[in-house]
Order: sequence, then structure tokens, then C-alpha cells
Amino acid sequence: MSDNAMLLLTNAIVLTMDEALTQYEPGAVAVQDDRIVAVGPESDLRGQFPAAQVIDCGGKVLMPGLVNAHGHAAMVLLRGLADDLRLDVWLLGYMMPVERSFVSPEFVRLGTQLACAEMIRSGTTCFADMYYFEDSVAQATADAGLRGVLGQTVMKFPAPDAASYEESVELARAFLRAWRGHPLIMPSVAPHAPYTCPPEVLRACTALAVEFDVPMQIHLAETALEVTNCQAENGMTVIPHVEQHGIFGAKVVAAHCVHVDGREIQTLRHYNAGVSHNPSSNLKLASGFAPVRDMLKAGLAVGIGTDGAASNNDLDMFEEMRLAALVAKSANNDPTVLPAAQAVAMATRLGARALHMEALIGSLEPGKRADLILVDIAALHNTPRFRREPEGIYAQLVYASHAGDVTDVMVNGRWVMTDRQLKTLNEADLLTQAKEYARRIDAFLIEREQSVLSKLVAIGGAQEGESFEVQAKARLADPAPALAALAMPDLEILHERHYREYDTYFAFADPAQGQLRYREDEFIDAEGKVSNVRSRLTLLGPAREGRFESDVLLSRSRFLAPATHSLRFYREYFKPAREVFIQKDRRRWRVLFRGTEFYVNLDRIEQPDLGYFIEAKSRTWSRRDAEHKAELARELLASLGVATENTVTEDYVQIAGGE
Amino acid sequence: MSDNAMLLLTNAIVLTMDEALTQYEPGAVAVQDDRIVAVGPESDLRGQFPAAQVIDCGGKVLMPGLVNAHGHAAMVLLRGLADDLRLDVWLLGYMMPVERSFVSPEFVRLGTQLACAEMIRSGTTCFADMYYFEDSVAQATADAGLRGVLGQTVMKFPAPDAASYEESVELARAFLRAWRGHPLIMPSVAPHAPYTCPPEVLRACTALAVEFDVPMQIHLAETALEVTNCQAENGMTVIPHVEQHGIFGAKVVAAHCVHVDGREIQTLRHYNAGVSHNPSSNLKLASGFAPVRDMLKAGLAVGIGTDGAASNNDLDMFEEMRLAALVAKSANNDPTVLPAAQAVAMATRLGARALHMEALIGSLEPGKRADLILVDIAALHNTPRFRREPEGIYAQLVYASHAGDVTDVMVNGRWVMTDRQLKTLNEADLLTQAKEYARRIDAFLIEREQSVLSKLVAIGGAQEGESFEVQAKARLADPAPALAALAMPDLEILHERHYREYDTYFAFADPAQGQLRYREDEFIDAEGKVSNVRSRLTLLGPAREGRFESDVLLSRSRFLAPATHSLRFYREYFKPAREVFIQKDRRRWRVLFRGTEFYVNLDRIEQPDLGYFIEAKSRTWSRRDAEHKAELARELLASLGVATENTVTEDYVQIAGGE
Repeated sequence: MSDNAMLLLTNAIVLTMDEALTQYEPGAVAVQDDRIVAVGPESDLRGQFPAAQVIDCGGKVLMPGLVNAHGHAAMVLLRGLADDLRLDVWLLGYMMPVERSFVSPEFVRLGTQLACAEMIRSGTTCFADMYYFEDSVAQATADAGLRGVLGQTVMKFPAPDAASYEESVELARAFLRAWRGHPLIMPSVAPHAPYTCPPEVLRACTALAVEFDVPMQIHLAETALEVTNCQAENGMTVIPHVEQHGIFGAKVVAAHCVHVDGREIQTLRHYNAGVSHNPSSNLKLASGFAPVRDMLKAGLAVGIGTDGAASNNDLDMFEEMRLAALVAKSANNDPTVLPAAQAVAMATRLGARALHMEALIGSLEPGKRADLILVDIAALHNTPRFRREPEGIYAQLVYASHAGDVTDVMVNGRWVMTDRQLKTLNEADLLTQAKEYARRIDAFLIEREQSVLSKLVAIGGAQEGESFEVQAKARLADPAPALAALAMPDLEILHERHYREYDTYFAFADPAQGQLRYREDEFIDAEGKVSNVRSRLTLLGPAREGRFESDVLLSRSRFLAPATHSLRFYREYFKPAREVFIQKDRRRWRVLFRGTEFYVNLDRIEQPDLGYFIEAKSRTWSRRDAEHKAELARELLASLGVATENTVTEDYVQIAGGE
Repeated sequence: MSDNAMLLLTNAIVLTMDEALTQYEPGAVAVQDDRIVAVGPESDLRGQFPAAQVIDCGGKVLMPGLVNAHGHAAMVLLRGLADDLRLDVWLLGYMMPVERSFVSPEFVRLGTQLACAEMIRSGTTCFADMYYFEDSVAQATADAGLRGVLGQTVMKFPAPDAASYEESVELARAFLRAWRGHPLIMPSVAPHAPYTCPPEVLRACTALAVEFDVPMQIHLAETALEVTNCQAENGMTVIPHVEQHGIFGAKVVAAHCVHVDGREIQTLRHYNAGVSHNPSSNLKLASGFAPVRDMLKAGLAVGIGTDGAASNNDLDMFEEMRLAALVAKSANNDPTVLPAAQAVAMATRLGARALHMEALIGSLEPGKRADLILVDIAALHNTPRFRREPEGIYAQLVYASHAGDVTDVMVNGRWVMTDRQLKTLNEADLLTQAKEYARRIDAFLIEREQSVLSKLVAIGGAQEGESFEVQAKARLADPAPALAALAMPDLEILHERHYREYDTYFAFADPAQGQLRYREDEFIDAEGKVSNVRSRLTLLGPAREGRFESDVLLSRSRFLAPATHSLRFYREYFKPAREVFIQKDRRRWRVLFRGTEFYVNLDRIEQPDLGYFIEAKSRTWSRRDAEHKAELARELLASLGVATENTVTEDYVQIAGGE
């Protein structure tokens, strides 16, 4: 195609972003087909290419397109869905349930198109991506004319596009086959993270990346918790753990690297791994301050990424450059750290190197692909300009330029935006489609949020259990007589346990929602020591189903779930209107009383200090059975010497003043 | 003026930013003259004001104008002048020398106009200011139709607009008299900071602020160094120090408050002081992370400020809101800290309260001034919108909106921007004028930077000294014979000292610049202890003026300055190409030798280890005298037993390999 006209971009402040940070003013760049032919002073290039078609850049900055080294493009469709939350609540409570329900090839295509439009507008010409249905991401990116290093996600959990990790690996293989050699798309494989990818998954992905000689993208050492867990499970921190499983045999792009020490930085350097630093995301999720200065000092290729728009909340590399420079200064207590020129280098040449793409992109040098942008630095918010220091121009770009100052974008020799007009995407149409998705997602979440039960189901695994329970309960001034009476002949003790129970009850503004109980059980052994601990979550239905006599209850319906998250997680996710805490010592006997199985609980309520209670409980499945057991339960308590006037019908949480 | 038409702004997402964060959608705001008459659901207000002139807001966000709680508006003219430098180098090396040479009423007027244009474009309707020639700031602000809390700066040093602090106080008094009662301008007095304002200055300013009942603006506890110095000088940290001197009798607006502890926060709260948090500036200058969460928790009115554009580098309150929210999360290791709604409150109602202006502005409530903005939240980078959470709209403003999304701005009932067109300022004209200023400042600095001497003079106090010096020097294998010979009869010892000297020589790429020596002298007393320390800076002229015989030098010209800053400061300010460090033990005698005064130095060069040297030196002012003394100096050394073959002509820095 070299019969195409030669383009000569003139009258520009040319920032080559080469190793020497060469600048030309007035400078020019000659482009033919997909690549840069020459870069230099305008007068030289005019002489060299007298027949070229001249494009006057109007004194703007002409520089390499920005390289977004980490993200999840299609998540722009989830921008602003949930903010100011802790990572687990955000991810497990909102992102993953919505992704499970909505992420499809259609969703991914639309999201990627929107993301491409936003990235073009803000001067990004190449982006890294890790998501699902990556084939749709690639198609949308290629259609938009943008360059992408696009990674098909693999993890041990079922994903929106694969029921198992083996399926994901096969998807990835097909994806690599389909897209290798494409002029704009560098396909890649993306094991999500060490905590979601066991060693066999990491090894399978590495083998694939090596076989196809493509980059492998992975989240590494993003949070302190990840490091703590890795240390506990594998006896070492994250980088040595993944090194042991051979991932650095591939061309690794490591996203985040917030919690890596000097030795781990050396390991990353040794294997030539690229790193994406994601300042907005790390700040917003309070992941920590990445050791960017140390990584750069060690010679690591550290690029800059936006991460997904759901945790940023945009794809604006100008903001990320600025934040990278600002935060490094304060984190190191030194305003000379990460000067503006270095931030621009991270967003261009170093980002390209981090993605293992430096031979093709990242600087304006002859032979590289023509990925370039024009930035207007004459706007009000960027005036005046001082020329004393050559570095001043980078400070203008980093500390004062906005994404909106980008006017023209060329990728692979083709204009995708001129004079702020997108050439490859219909913005209005995309916005309309996005609105419709948001409406559906909103409706889905609004419905879910209306019910505590739906929210419980949404985070996985709530099961309806023990639908009904008969319960007789009484206060005891002194537990000794009841304890002695347990030896009576018509009571057979089948099993005996001793617990300490810590219950937190969440109550909601609407009592019809019921109450959610977070219980930690400590099992106490014969020697009085804690032998085991478990946590359970129980949604106690709002209404009693019936009452027999005045003192025996047919308890509410309930839903049980193992409490795999922390109390803090549930508090932030369910947002209770009120909480009550109850701590008790419980001795529990499973007994046969006149041929019927009962649980007898002898409880000492320690916090608040309410004294002793005794309960007789039995599960039931039919109203008729319930009536029979209610009678028996009263008799059981009576035979344990409990006076009728001491029976209570309230739950502990009611007695404790919880409702 | 209530014969003016009633305006009804309709079809808006109205964020009132009142205490309850009331929202109306579709909402409306009724404005008459300079104030808000009603705020509520659109249908209610349409019914209430059927005759009003309706303005359709097109579904945009309608909210209070942003309040920039701290800054130095006119410094936009110094935007990008010097970046990525330490505070002292930036301030003392660049800002203050340029301000001394350029700041005039004309500079301040133009700078303020540019700043007003930028602030209007980014949705700011009221800004706080501390600068010089504040009368010109006020005039420019009033002409631009913007609201300002404008503080005439007072400090102990001569300022661009006053030779002494007394003059500044009188300027401030005249300023308060001239502008009190103005509908847009709240004049104020601004003692710069405790470290530039001794107690008498603080007291004078406080008295003035109290007399006129206006806010008093001051920088407080910006850096850790300020606190350390305050503790050392006053025996207490910054807030108790200024409390002791009564400043909280005035309505204080405290800028920064980065380094305040829980008790100081309580003090600020007790006196109802407002605080301006300036996240970009604090990050960029690495001042530290202000305890914003704790200040807010304590009930302090914490607003948000941009600080001057020379350390930001723009006046974009959207960036500041975003940074305030993001940085607080990471600084507290908790992503739920400072949620978006709180960041918007800080930029509006709390900012107004911090400036003691809450009765007038900061929220959309009937009776308050009509300071309001429209923000388009339908742009690509802000799509889609989710409605599940009422807080979502604040997250959109904080995490995804840009300054460029502000389309319309009203101040005091008057439109100053509609549909992104400025109504009160001629932007193109301002840009042209700014360019001319930048050219002149550039020329001034470029000339200055060409000479180390000019840079030395620019930071104050270099004096030309000891223009010429005759020097004879020789190596000594053993100092004992020379020491013994000092007792000879034709040598009268007038004075004797003992030092340890630590010299750092800066060499520059251009040897014609000479060398700059930073010397720390430790005076050693009779008991061998350090009795005193002083630091001096000496610029050693580049060339020898002459040489007598082969072994006696007429040394170079030199400039002396007391080294009031640290070695680190000078290193970053002068940017030497090379450094040489020399440490020596020096015994020095002032002697009369044949009636002429000489200094005899017996030096042991310890680092690098070069052994012993002896020098005979004398100052001179004429060539003839120099010739005479050169002869005498050689004879003096000879009489001390020094062999001619041991004489050296090089400086220690040359011997040490420095040039």
C-alpha cells in the first residue's frame, strides 16, 4: 500500500518521547501507510519530503498516543453503579452479580465501543484489556480503529463466558488463533489473579502465552490482604509464589503491584515483566501506594492504567498521569519524585514497553506505527507557556492539560478523530444504547435491593432451611435444678455440645424484611477450650407463623447461608438500620423425650447480662406435627422443673431491646 | 430592583446541597434579582410562579456554584513556571524573585481576570484569595461578576506592594474601608503565615479583622517543617502558638492544616475557624496528607481550595473534589471515607461555611444569593447514569465529571457564562496579554539562569568580597617542624583558631561560571569541642587573575553569601554538573611577618586523605601590593622550613580531582 500519499504533519511542538526525550519546535512528522517515516525539525522534513501532503498542526503538541496499560474496557457500562464501597462489597455485592446477569457478547461489544470513543477523545491510542467474551472486545476495537492488547480472562470460578477454567483456556486458545497477526489487535491471555487462579490454571495460561508468543496479563499484589492470604496459603508472598509456578516464562504484564518489596521488584525486573500502575483505582479502593519510584529506579517498565471505569470512574489517561506524578511525591515525601516528563514517559514509551509492544509503539521514531495525537496547550486553563525549561512542556501536559484538550488522534496511520470529531464511532447512537442498558441494570438492582432475601441470594448460596420450629422457653433463676432434672428417666440424652455464641442481629427500616443474624459459634471442648469456630448467616423471616397456647412458638421461616465474608462486609452490604449484639454461653443437648427428638438449650446470656434461660426446640414440617410438638415442649420444660410463670415468648434479641 | 423579572430554571436535577442533601428531579429554582426565591419540584414551582420567565436546563445538574476556599488567583500568570521542585527552591528560587520583579497592579489585574475566566469555566462562583495589590484583585473580580473573599496580604518581609508590615496593615485597612458592603466582594485581611508574621503582626491583623468584622485568612500548619520550627521557637505547635496570640478572636480561614493533631482540631472547632483543604497543592509539594476525615468528624467546616495555579497547576475544583475524595480513602486505608456527597458538600456548603459566608451562599435555599451552575452529566465520559442510589449523582460529579462539563454559571443572579460562552470577560484578549507577560518573565529567568552569579544574587544577599588573594601553599610530610618554626622571632602571632571545615564544591558544565563552595565551619575550642558552627556560600570566580613566579597565586575574585539554606536547597537550585566534597582540619594563625599581616593555615585534608598542607595567604587590593606580598609569602613558607619543591599551585578541589 506504499502508493498511499505521504503525510507531513507540520507546525507542531513534537515530543518524540524517545529515550533522550528529543523535542522539535517547530517540528514535523512524516507518515506513510501505517508507520512513521521521519521525525525532525520542520524545515528539514519539508526539504526531505517536498511532495508530501502537508497538515498544519496549528502549534499544538504532537506526541505519541497514550498507552492505557490496564483496564476492563466494557465496564464503562457499569460506571457509577456503586461507589465509595470496600473492595469486597463492591466486587462481590455489586459487580459480580450484575456481571453474572448482564455480561454477554452484546454487552461487551457496546461497552468496548463506548470505551473506545472515550479513549480516543482523551488521547489513548492503545489499551490493555482483561475481560470476558474477548473476541467481541477485539472486534469492537478493530472496528473503532484503536489498538488493543486484549486478554481473554481465565479463572477457577465460572465466568460469564465459561462454566469452568478449562473452557476459559479453550476460549483463550481460539481467541489467540483468531486474532494473531492482526494489524491492530495483539491477543493475549489473562489469568485473573493468583487468588482466583490455582497453580494449574497459571501453568495452563503460561503455556498458552508461550506457545503463541503473546503477552500474559494478570493482577498481582493489588491489596495487602492478597499478600497476607498468599503468605498464609503458600508460605510466601505473591511474586515468589507465581514465580514458582513459572508464570514469568511468559511476557507478563502485571497490573497493580502495590504491595511488592525490593526483592520482588528485582524478580519482576529480572524476568522483564511489565507493570501497570493504576493510581485512581488504587486510591479509590484504598489499595495503598504502589512503590512506583522504586520500581522505576530498578529499571522496571512501569506504565499507567485507568483500570475499569467502574472503579475510576473514567478512562482519562491525563488524570492518571497527573495522579501518578502527584501521589508519588506525597507517598515519598519528596516533590522532586516522578517529575512530569517521567509521568508522560510512563503513559507512552514505558507503557508500550510494559505491554511488550515497544518495538511498535510508544514513541515517535521512524519505523514505528503512526499512533499519535495532537494536544492543544493554548487553552485558558493552560496559559501561559514558559519556555525556559524544556521540561516545562511536560509539566503543562501533566499538571494542566485536560483530556478535552486532545483534538486529533491517529492510530496505525489512520485518523480516528479530527478536530474533536470521532471518525469511526457514532457517539449519539452508543449513548442511547448505553442508557437502555443502565435502565435494565438499575431495574435489576432496585428490585434486588428491595428485599434482604434477594440481596442474600445475590451474593450466593442462601438456602431455605428449617422452615418451622417449635420452641418453648423460660427464664431460670438457678440452672442447677434443671441440670439435675436432665437425668430423669423419660429423657434420653443423645448428644451434648457446649458453645459460646456471638450473634449480631441486623434490623431494617422495613420490619417486613425480617432480621439478619450473623452468628459466630465457638465450640468448647471438654477442657473448656475453643476447639472450632464457624460463622453462619441466618435471615429470620419477619412474622411468626402461629402461636400455640401462650408460651410455645412456632417460629418463623428462615434462610441459612455460610458466612464466608466478615461481619463488616455484611454490615456495609446490607446497610441495616439497627444492630443488636448478643453473646451467650450455650450448653445444648439433643434428647429423646417421649419418643420425640428435641434440642434442649441451657443459655447464659452474658451480653447484655440477662441471666439464664432454658429452651426446648424441635423442627417440624407440618402444622399437625407442630401442634403435637408444642404440647410436648411445654411438658418437657415442666418436667425440668420450670415454672409456667417464667416462660417467655420473645426472642433474645427482643428481650435485649432489639425490636 | 425587585421589578426585575422572576427567572424559573426548570427541567434540572436540582442538588440543593442543603444539610439534608435534598434533591429534586425534575426540579426547579426560582431566582429574582440577586437571590433565590424558591427551590423545589418543577411542577410545584411552575404552579407557584406562573408568570416567571422559564429557562429549560435540559436535564442538567443544577447546583450551587463551587466555592474555592483558598488560592492566589493572579498566580495563574506563573502557571508552569517551575515544577517538580522542593517548596523552598520553588518559592525562594523562582516564585519570590519573579514576584519581586513583576508583581504590580497591572500584573494582578490581568492575572485575576484570567483566573476568573478559568474559574467561571470550571463552575466556581466564589473564591478566596490572598495576594498583593488586593484592591486590583477586587476590581477585576467585581468586573468579572464573580464573588470573592479577598485578603490583602501582610507579612514581616517587604512585599511587592509594601516596604514594611506596617505599610501592609495600612493597605489592608484602606482596602477593607473601600470594599466593605460590596455585593460581590468580601474584603479580608491575610497575615501570610505564623512563620512570616511575628506575634505583633498577627495581633495587628486580628484587630483589623475584628474591627471590620471580616474574615481573616492565614496559612497554618502546611508543612511538617513549619511545625518543627514553631515548636523549637515557641515551645508549642502552630495552632496553640497562634491561639496564644489571639488570632481566633477573628473569623479565621485557615489554609492547609496538614499537620494538626486531635487537640489542635478541637481548638479550631472551638473557635469556629474554617479550614481550606488543598489536595493538589499538598500532593504536588509533598506537604503531607491532611487529616480531613478527623477534621470533618470533629465538625469542622472544611472547604476545598485549589491554592495558586503555580503549584497546582490549574483552578479546577472538579479535580480538587475528586482528589479530596480519593486521597482521603488511601490515607485512611478505607474506601468508604469521604464519599462523593461529602466531597461535593465540601466544595459548596462547607466551603461557604469555612469562609464564614454560609448565610449568603453554599446551597440552593430560598433567601441565599443566586450563585449556581449547570453541569452536563450526559457526556460520553459520564455515561451511563444509574438511579438506584441518590448518592450516585454525587459520584458522577466527583469521579467522572470534568470542569469542561460546566455549561452555565450564574453569580448573584447574573449569568457570567451561558452555553460555555463567557459573558463578562474577553478570553482571547486576556490570552494575548498573558503571552506577553510570559515572554518577559521567560526572558528575565533565562538571563538569570545563564549565570550562577545572577542566580546567587536572585536569592538574596551575595556580596563581592576579598577581591584578590595572594596564596603560597606547600605539602608537608610532617607538620611538627613547621609548628615549631611558628615560634621564630620575626613572626608575631596575633590570633589562633582551630576549625573543622566541610566543603562541597559545585562545578558547572560551563567552567566560565566558576565554582560554588558550600562550607560548614565547625569552631573547635581549647578542649577540642565544637563551640560554634557557621555555613557560608562562596562563588569562586572562574579564572586566576595572575600568577607570580611559579608557586604563588593571586587568587580569583569571589562572592560571599551567608548560607541560610541547606546544602540540599543549593544543590537543587543551582543544579551543578559535578560535586566534590573535601573535609579538613585547619589550624589558622593570623600573624605579622615582617610587618605584613598573613594568615597561616596548617591543614590536614581528611577526606579525601591527602595529608598535610601549609598555606600563607594575604588579601590584597592592588597589583603592586600583590607582587610585594607574593614575594613575602614565599619567604614566609621558606622560613617555616618548607622546601620549594613541595609547593603546589592547585586548589584542594583540583588536587582532589574536582577539575
